[in-house]
Amino acid sequence: MGFRQSTATLAMGRHTVLLLLLAFLTLREVIPVPLALRALSNLHRSASFTSRPAVPTKYTVHYLQQKVDHFGFTTDKTFKQRYLLADEHWKKDDGSILFYTGNEGDIVWFCNNTGFMWDVAEELKAMLVFAEHRYYGESLPFGNNSFKDSRYLNYLTSEQALADFAVLIKYLKRTIPGAKNQPVIALGGSYGGMLAAWFRMKYPHMVVGALAASAPIWHFGNLVPCGVFMKIVTEDFRKSGPNCSETIHDSWGAITRLARTGSGLHWLSEALHLCTPLRNSQDVQHLKGWISETWINLAMVDYPYESNFLQPLPAWPIKVVCKYLNNPSLSDAQLLQNIFQALNIYYNYSGQARCLNISETTTSNLGTQGWSYQACTEMVMPFCTNGIDDMFEPRSWNFREYSDDCFKQWGVRPRPAWITTVYGGRNISSHSNIVFSNGELDPWSGGGVTKDITDTLVAITIPEGAHHLDLRARNAFDPTTVLLARSLEVRHMKQWIRDFYASQRKKH
Amino acid sequence: MGFRQSTATLAMGRHTVLLLLLAFLTLREVIPVPLALRALSNLHRSASFTSRPAVPTKYTVHYLQQKVDHFGFTTDKTFKQRYLLADEHWKKDDGSILFYTGNEGDIVWFCNNTGFMWDVAEELKAMLVFAEHRYYGESLPFGNNSFKDSRYLNYLTSEQALADFAVLIKYLKRTIPGAKNQPVIALGGSYGGMLAAWFRMKYPHMVVGALAASAPIWHFGNLVPCGVFMKIVTEDFRKSGPNCSETIHDSWGAITRLARTGSGLHWLSEALHLCTPLRNSQDVQHLKGWISETWINLAMVDYPYESNFLQPLPAWPIKVVCKYLNNPSLSDAQLLQNIFQALNIYYNYSGQARCLNISETTTSNLGTQGWSYQACTEMVMPFCTNGIDDMFEPRSWNFREYSDDCFKQWGVRPRPAWITTVYGGRNISSHSNIVFSNGELDPWSGGGVTKDITDTLVAITIPEGAHHLDLRARNAFDPTTVLLARSLEVRHMKQWIRDFYASQRKKH
Repeated sequence: MGFRQSTATLAMGRHTVLLLLLAFLTLREVIPVPLALRALSNLHRSASFTSRPAVPTKYTVHYLQQKVDHFGFTTDKTFKQRYLLADEHWKKDDGSILFYTGNEGDIVWFCNNTGFMWDVAEELKAMLVFAEHRYYGESLPFGNNSFKDSRYLNYLTSEQALADFAVLIKYLKRTIPGAKNQPVIALGGSYGGMLAAWFRMKYPHMVVGALAASAPIWHFGNLVPCGVFMKIVTEDFRKSGPNCSETIHDSWGAITRLARTGSGLHWLSEALHLCTPLRNSQDVQHLKGWISETWINLAMVDYPYESNFLQPLPAWPIKVVCKYLNNPSLSDAQLLQNIFQALNIYYNYSGQARCLNISETTTSNLGTQGWSYQACTEMVMPFCTNGIDDMFEPRSWNFREYSDDCFKQWGVRPRPAWITTVYGGRNISSHSNIVFSNGELDPWSGGGVTKDITDTLVAITIPEGAHHLDLRARNAFDPTTVLLARSLEVRHMKQWIRDFYASQRKKH
Repeated sequence: MGFRQSTATLAMGRHTVLLLLLAFLTLREVIPVPLALRALSNLHRSASFTSRPAVPTKYTVHYLQQKVDHFGFTTDKTFKQRYLLADEHWKKDDGSILFYTGNEGDIVWFCNNTGFMWDVAEELKAMLVFAEHRYYGESLPFGNNSFKDSRYLNYLTSEQALADFAVLIKYLKRTIPGAKNQPVIALGGSYGGMLAAWFRMKYPHMVVGALAASAPIWHFGNLVPCGVFMKIVTEDFRKSGPNCSETIHDSWGAITRLARTGSGLHWLSEALHLCTPLRNSQDVQHLKGWISETWINLAMVDYPYESNFLQPLPAWPIKVVCKYLNNPSLSDAQLLQNIFQALNIYYNYSGQARCLNISETTTSNLGTQGWSYQACTEMVMPFCTNGIDDMFEPRSWNFREYSDDCFKQWGVRPRPAWITTVYGGRNISSHSNIVFSNGELDPWSGGGVTKDITDTLVAITIPEGAHHLDLRARNAFDPTTVLLARSLEVRHMKQWIRDFYASQRKKH
């Protein structure tokens, strides 16, 4: 396991997470769009870096003509869905098919960064399939126009994506000799994990089981408290160093006080080495949002080994950051100087950055646009903070404001009750063969399934795990708990495969 | 149980069946639309007759604002879905909710004609809910324009209908005090039975089980031979009298021979007492289609007691019809005179008809229009005959022709592979709590589930049953097998209800 492979998968965490986070960030910001765009400009850079994995992944690229609308017949328009195949270890006799249910990004990216599937392919005699999610990567139903108009975006839903997966699996079984009578297992992380779980729920005839890693399927409606996410972020910082979360908690007031005067704004801009000086209270709000995002990202990628993200990061980065945030009894200025040191770990571990950039960019990224739309339609995840259970400034969940922002941006209104109506909310016990894995460090675990529901709907928790650590490639610094999690996951998958072949034999 | 109640439910059989049959009729006819329209003009009459049940059913009428498009966000348009409630026997403590998944017709019609639900309401302490299917009855998403344009019809799919049901159940649970913690069971017959089964498959969090009566969920793709339907129709006639099916088999050639000359056409028109004389070979094709439809309808409503349909019918009507069709060794003219006697049983049992009407009408009926569209999009049921295993003229399944007809009529192309992709085809064993009931006399049983799949996916067959006889009200002439079927169905439903309350108790 080379170092670069690790960094590659590390970046995936942020990628996925950032997109899932748009819902939250949208809310936190006075002007929601620019922050999203800025986030993605980072993303863009990281993507190009980390799509070169250390261990070359050997796959072939394919395209399947899919209906743009599986649920309506007025349009017969089709588009090309991209998917990747790797069959080096596949056995036609008693093998299996591991099917990655692509989420909100380029599928090559996911393919190169889901080391777990590559690591277990031989043991499961598995063909690997990575299916790109419509409206991401190259799978654009209306080409460059896909995001131009809400009419073009109308087919960007989880239901359409699941239907694409079903059609693709049926096609693969029909066309690849030997694939027909093989068990297929869905795998995915984050939103991709939700899709894997939902795919097993809605299309159990297509997959014998699903591994849903870090899938916050309950971060909808009022299934979990809206503050759970930021509470876990806070807990990560609280546990990583004395006074760490308290220091951050106090920093917001310090910023507010310093920003009251022109000279304070100037001082803040200098102290934080910002590329563009702060001019007004709106800039200060952006600064706070940008800093919050940094802590959130650190919580999600708090991995146990050194890694390269937007900037290189040390192992257990929060611990390193917290070394600078151990004394809350300081003046506002001293506090902010320490905050800068902490931010500098995240943004300038390599020492190359001349300044820290919180400015908005107009760079566009399909992934982010797509997720922004999804967050404004189906994927309504309520977030809030109260400054008591968490280290952030209090902010309530304001659906009306959220909905108005969505309408301004996309011309659509979110339907917050829909996901639980269609996918069952907490009432999913009649399904089977889904493993829900969650890292306890991962803020998304708050919306995940962390207790067994039945014998075949099982939860695996990884105490030292951040966002879908288990899907990443093996690493010498993996904690024992993630090794255990992966071996449990393999055990479940093997059981599903055995059950499948046993029932096949019964039929004949 | 009064006589009129029985006749009311009898009519439902034809109603449902006729619509399901459009797929077939479309194929058989050179010009598909008119026959459909004719069928529906009959329907229209029968509907107004049989919507007056003998035992007044006490229900209240309600409307729920539903999204026109559950699967897209461009339109936020809503429409009013009608549903009926009856809670006379409902118990809030340990009761249940029986939810009729409305099919292709007016829901008042189904409500008044699903006597089984009314008969078991007290025993199951059940609230009855009858939900109207979108695009039928009063639940028209675009009012009078609903069928004017394929763009308006775009939201007429089984998936949208199931989503309506889910939203409705969620709404009822939220708004009716005492309903929240009650088990809901889906029930339906024919297409409504398919919807009940699919609803349990796709929304198991909404219903604890489903009773799918005479639901041909496998009459799609190549899951069953395309000839199975007409083979069962033929078998019904074969068993109902000596030489009966042979006589019908021979009648087609006799018609062809007689129709070769102008005088033969004239004689045929007179002998069959047709209201409008036959003019050409196209008329003769229509005649054959109309006669075929008569035999099909008789097979579906071959109920064990006297009943009133389009015209009054005797008990076991095929037996009565077959009395006229017991001698195949006759001249063509004699044979056709006997065919007339047989048709006359079906169309003129009351002796009131002056002539038999096979002419096309331009009368419109929403139900038929809707089903015609559904048959041209999702509900592609292949039908064929070979004249060897069945008593009809040979006709192969020609998908291209079918598709072209659909395109001409609605501007859409059917997607024959979709239903099995989305609902699983034969691979449904991972689901649970569905009772599939089928009458062995019912031609639709050929596409139904007639063998247990698992312990909780069970098949009940009723040897003396025609189309969903079990959903009809109790009748003194019910054969023992249907009584047994109903009691088994109740036993399953009680088990689901018990399991639900047991798991509720465990939670608390």
